[in-house]
Amino acid sequence: MVRVALIGQGYVATIFAWGLSKIKAGKLEPSGVPLGNLDLGIGISDLEIVGSIDVDEEKVGKSLYEVAKMYGLEPEPELRDIYVSPGLALRSTPSFLKVKSLDSGRSLGDAYAKFEEWLDDVKPDVVIDVTSTVYSEPVLSWEEAEEKALKGILPHSQVYAYLLLRRGNLAHVNLQPAYVAGSPGFIKRAEQSRSLVLGDDGATGATPLTIDLAEHLKERNRKILSIAQFNIGGNTDFLALMDPDRNDAKEKTKSSFLKDILGYDPPHYIRPTGYLEPLGDKKFVSMHMQWISFGGFMDELVVNMRINDSPALAGYIVDLARLGFLALKKGLYGTLPEVNRFYMKRPGPMGARHVSKIRAYYDLVAFAEELKKK
Amino acid sequence: MVRVALIGQGYVATIFAWGLSKIKAGKLEPSGVPLGNLDLGIGISDLEIVGSIDVDEEKVGKSLYEVAKMYGLEPEPELRDIYVSPGLALRSTPSFLKVKSLDSGRSLGDAYAKFEEWLDDVKPDVVIDVTSTVYSEPVLSWEEAEEKALKGILPHSQVYAYLLLRRGNLAHVNLQPAYVAGSPGFIKRAEQSRSLVLGDDGATGATPLTIDLAEHLKERNRKILSIAQFNIGGNTDFLALMDPDRNDAKEKTKSSFLKDILGYDPPHYIRPTGYLEPLGDKKFVSMHMQWISFGGFMDELVVNMRINDSPALAGYIVDLARLGFLALKKGLYGTLPEVNRFYMKRPGPMGARHVSKIRAYYDLVAFAEELKKK
Amino acid sequence: MVRVALIGQGYVATIFAWGLSKIKAGKLEPSGVPLGNLDLGIGISDLEIVGSIDVDEEKVGKSLYEVAKMYGLEPEPELRDIYVSPGLALRSTPSFLKVKSLDSGRSLGDAYAKFEEWLDDVKPDVVIDVTSTVYSEPVLSWEEAEEKALKGILPHSQVYAYLLLRRGNLAHVNLQPAYVAGSPGFIKRAEQSRSLVLGDDGATGATPLTIDLAEHLKERNRKILSIAQFNIGGNTDFLALMDPDRNDAKEKTKSSFLKDILGYDPPHYIRPTGYLEPLGDKKFVSMHMQWISFGGFMDELVVNMRINDSPALAGYIVDLARLGFLALKKGLYGTLPEVNRFYMKRPGPMGARHVSKIRAYYDLVAFAEELKKK
Amino acid sequence: MVRVALIGQGYVATIFAWGLSKIKAGKLEPSGVPLGNLDLGIGISDLEIVGSIDVDEEKVGKSLYEVAKMYGLEPEPELRDIYVSPGLALRSTPSFLKVKSLDSGRSLGDAYAKFEEWLDDVKPDVVIDVTSTVYSEPVLSWEEAEEKALKGILPHSQVYAYLLLRRGNLAHVNLQPAYVAGSPGFIKRAEQSRSLVLGDDGATGATPLTIDLAEHLKERNRKILSIAQFNIGGNTDFLALMDPDRNDAKEKTKSSFLKDILGYDPPHYIRPTGYLEPLGDKKFVSMHMQWISFGGFMDELVVNMRINDSPALAGYIVDLARLGFLALKKGLYGTLPEVNRFYMKRPGPMGARHVSKIRAYYDLVAFAEELKKK
Repeated sequence: MVRVALIGQGYVATIFAWGLSKIKAGKLEPSGVPLGNLDLGIGISDLEIVGSIDVDEEKVGKSLYEVAKMYGLEPEPELRDIYVSPGLALRSTPSFLKVKSLDSGRSLGDAYAKFEEWLDDVKPDVVIDVTSTVYSEPVLSWEEAEEKALKGILPHSQVYAYLLLRRGNLAHVNLQPAYVAGSPGFIKRAEQSRSLVLGDDGATGATPLTIDLAEHLKERNRKILSIAQFNIGGNTDFLALMDPDRNDAKEKTKSSFLKDILGYDPPHYIRPTGYLEPLGDKKFVSMHMQWISFGGFMDELVVNMRINDSPALAGYIVDLARLGFLALKKGLYGTLPEVNRFYMKRPGPMGARHVSKIRAYYDLVAFAEELKKK
Repeated sequence: MVRVALIGQGYVATIFAWGLSKIKAGKLEPSGVPLGNLDLGIGISDLEIVGSIDVDEEKVGKSLYEVAKMYGLEPEPELRDIYVSPGLALRSTPSFLKVKSLDSGRSLGDAYAKFEEWLDDVKPDVVIDVTSTVYSEPVLSWEEAEEKALKGILPHSQVYAYLLLRRGNLAHVNLQPAYVAGSPGFIKRAEQSRSLVLGDDGATGATPLTIDLAEHLKERNRKILSIAQFNIGGNTDFLALMDPDRNDAKEKTKSSFLKDILGYDPPHYIRPTGYLEPLGDKKFVSMHMQWISFGGFMDELVVNMRINDSPALAGYIVDLARLGFLALKKGLYGTLPEVNRFYMKRPGPMGARHVSKIRAYYDLVAFAEELKKK
Repeated sequence: MVRVALIGQGYVATIFAWGLSKIKAGKLEPSGVPLGNLDLGIGISDLEIVGSIDVDEEKVGKSLYEVAKMYGLEPEPELRDIYVSPGLALRSTPSFLKVKSLDSGRSLGDAYAKFEEWLDDVKPDVVIDVTSTVYSEPVLSWEEAEEKALKGILPHSQVYAYLLLRRGNLAHVNLQPAYVAGSPGFIKRAEQSRSLVLGDDGATGATPLTIDLAEHLKERNRKILSIAQFNIGGNTDFLALMDPDRNDAKEKTKSSFLKDILGYDPPHYIRPTGYLEPLGDKKFVSMHMQWISFGGFMDELVVNMRINDSPALAGYIVDLARLGFLALKKGLYGTLPEVNRFYMKRPGPMGARHVSKIRAYYDLVAFAEELKKK
Repeated sequence: MVRVALIGQGYVATIFAWGLSKIKAGKLEPSGVPLGNLDLGIGISDLEIVGSIDVDEEKVGKSLYEVAKMYGLEPEPELRDIYVSPGLALRSTPSFLKVKSLDSGRSLGDAYAKFEEWLDDVKPDVVIDVTSTVYSEPVLSWEEAEEKALKGILPHSQVYAYLLLRRGNLAHVNLQPAYVAGSPGFIKRAEQSRSLVLGDDGATGATPLTIDLAEHLKERNRKILSIAQFNIGGNTDFLALMDPDRNDAKEKTKSSFLKDILGYDPPHYIRPTGYLEPLGDKKFVSMHMQWISFGGFMDELVVNMRINDSPALAGYIVDLARLGFLALKKGLYGTLPEVNRFYMKRPGPMGARHVSKIRAYYDLVAFAEELKKK
């Protein structure tokens, strides 16, 4: 059994919990789970959700069964037994949320201690951060993390990473854009505390497709002239991105890959563009690319997509929880670039070179097979 | 120097000749030449066009300089010295062409002999077939090829293959959908006559992209529900495809890859759809895909492209001529699956399994580097 | 009360019956009913379905309640009382249907008599033909209709028109591509038998949009260079169109409008393209247009749609039944060009000039208001 | 002869001047001129450019012939005789321009006087403002205009309007988003000074198309759930819009029409989104709409366009100059709502209700024919 704790019981975490229970009950195929058909030695059914954290007062105290209902999902009974505990709001939680958190009416130190009590209680093997996008900078040393966490100037995702790695003996998976696996301070600490940090920023929709399209063109030596990519959606992630700081965080993540893949940086405009409530979780993506073919002729491509944002990420969690647990059991600590490169938009550690997702996939499969044999 | 002969002096062959001359003159980058930046030991400038064949009475007897002008291209002076010789029309040439050919007013045997005289004269190392799409069946043995060629019931591309392999000591590249590298009879003969046949059907536009999109989805274990793909263009290839027989030839080529990549055959409708003259050589492609993501949610993707059809294929010829010549020099005979798998829609030999183009590319690069070292 | 009979109890007729019952029950807004918010003097609730005809043995003898269930719709109880009676299969019913019809095991004359018995029983004010697409030619005189009907060489939609107009005193609405309102023979007879024929071929999806886009460009004097339009779907209408004869029928309907709107006929390729079962009733449309702007610059537009084919047509029936009944009551006989021009792809009478749908709409509203006042 | 002066000698004004000269020379058809085929009594050849104003030091002092060359256009010799005079930069000119203007090194009063000298010299019948987008507020009275102009707190387009109307006896056409025809103060003054102001913000690309698509859906009573529209381009107008103030000005203009057309305001996100230099003047537009059809079914539409931004607007100038001149000659003063409603995004006067562009077109044609007869 793999004990999984969820931080941020939003739509992603809820789809994950709901879908996992459906797969276990034999009511759903593992579509959207990249390694769903690969025998990792750890089955999907071995995953067990043991705890959940959120700061939304609408959710804290409710069972995952009730939260799933809030999202219009028909849950399995097993979700009745897992309750949402209050987390840390800090200064970085989006302002449109009504907050119920450990740090309201408590000193930071006391709030952190409360979170550690929760950890003692839940004893997670793997922790998944799927909280809202937050602006952050890489944390260069453990001392820096410690100092800033205590001062209250570290954004929530980095505070969670700090508290989890202080405890150690777990795999922490960061699926949002904050610098966690991209922070040298956290990686080093993970090595010392028999832990793993995987991240950052799950790559599920337009970005990995853009990467593979860029690779496709590069392999034909077609010179890309420009790339424009728009994203618009109606879920709370898009709502949070209306805050320019958070949007910049995303922009930085998203466009860093082009030079690595192509060898040059074509003019591009790639960013989440807007919030439009009726689109819901099924975002609309529009992408335009133009390039030079043989003889100087110009070609053009437009991609339009409707993508269910949260399910795509939820499917990745099924793999990441298993891979993190397995690697830990086999004695791997720090981070796993072979895993990050496939699943993440800004794969840790800091400065890692992007490869196309299609290449990363085959490296991942080879890595997973090695790991199993260890 | 690599002596290259062209069969079918249409837009593809003309763009190739024109673009090659421009690259040699330093006036054009080798965009659209997949291995254009890889040192193969044979430079692009080593390619020399030594002969050209066509059956269009508008072209026979003209220089490539004049033919390039007919297509609105501004050619280099070196194209003045290469003339279009008459080829074999047989029964398979599209009816909208006014024909001037070796077999009009001559017995088949005499016409074949004339073609062999031309070969003696031209002495090609590499021959490129870029004639119009023709319906064909695989040729299972050399005897079958011989018998049908003499009876006049073999389509033109297979007749050219037959005559070239009878001569031997050359690399023959078939870029149209006829079964040449897909014919066991030709492969076997190539092995015996110190020759190579590469093919079939150059994969430049929507097909390789569809393959790589299918691979992209498969790697995330997303279940494809359906694929629709339309192609419409205004060049003579699309005009020829209005003939239902030729269109069927294309359909067969195009959709065979899905099962190989995905492990199942999703419902699909993939075929060249129509001829619309004002689109010219820049075809319009529209593709729709829908699939199941995690939790049973359905995603959708639409791709629209304007692609210069002929330049894309012309760029491939630059590689294929060099790779064919190089392999021959290193003593490889028969066919080269590593080459076919990347450049072709229906890679020979018969029954070869498709892999995604992105995987095929890295196999190709490894193969090319091996070859150079031999 | 308006007594409505349906011929062809497929998805369109079933959505209409189901949706009408939902609107009457106050459970659905009249979205998709063009004049849904206009007071015509006859309310939507005045429509009453009194009879239904089909030749599919799966449906004949079932209630509309049961048929709605077959299509996955949750019907209102009132549909329990209407049963599907057998119709006329003739030679023109698609071959993929298992048929139970009046003319199997009966002479044509007896079969027609049986149909007339059904009419006597049902006493419809308005009849709606939503059977499968069939190839036909205009019927020039009543004598021609009579002669061909008795010989059994008239396609089913024209036979229904013949039998209905022989009876008279009703409005017949033909929503499929057969020439009914486009047949002078039927129009003349309608005038004599105190009847109306409205049609042909309901214009709901890509065609009216193409018309209005063409009008939009014409108003800016932009010269259209080409139009390509593809349609692919998974309902039985698309399945029937795989038969080349039926497809040609559609093509003829679809492209006749361009010259009327633009004053010239731009090169175009417009036709239903394929059948792809997983798309279901929600067809995929892709359209490409290019034109010349001021100064000779070329612009391009691509439209992609997912359109629920049958609901769009079902919504029109709500208007057409009311307009037909109202006009009859006010003493209008023959046909109603003002109605046909908005709702139909090939508006009767024969030779009527197309106007853009947006213009036709305002003419329709004016006509409807006149009619009410009469 | 109609004496036309241009303010803002950017790409729009230059395409206009170049294209007009080509049409006069019989080398170009009047494509993209909405009323190009209508006999207005004033021919296209009657238009004569008599003056030009700009503040870009690269252009001031050059002939239109030289400016056309700068844009890669091949001009007619007649453009040699028209020179660009310096205009008013004020505070509202984009900061990326190197400025040479009447108000650098001069008091405002002196600068205005210099501009009036230029007017005395040029004696325009019609003036066209195609300067860069600028943020503005409506000017409610002539006194307000006067006061703010003298204080230097009026943006450049309103200053030009002020100075032109102070002179009177001319038609002023404002094609950018500043409130000119939308300012009651200017309209009233125009009535008093035997002048016309037409505007504001030429409607050439995505906006009028969106309007007509909204009308198309409304006529079928389809309920729009959401509209997303992105625009990205590489011309200086998009560059200027990167300034958030200017972008807001545009957003306000663009989305006000939906409620007028539909009767309700659907959730929407409509705005120019980004600057991407390689797209040049040929912007990329992507639009997504979803709506409810009959029975509650949801349809979707995506439009992607490549539109030459400046030629589309240049074509409108050919009409607007003629219509303005003609109306003045016939004694119409103030503004012309029938003209504004078709050509403009925010048609003056203030508070005018939007109608669909297709309806506005037929009103315009009727108005033009009336005008001619007067």
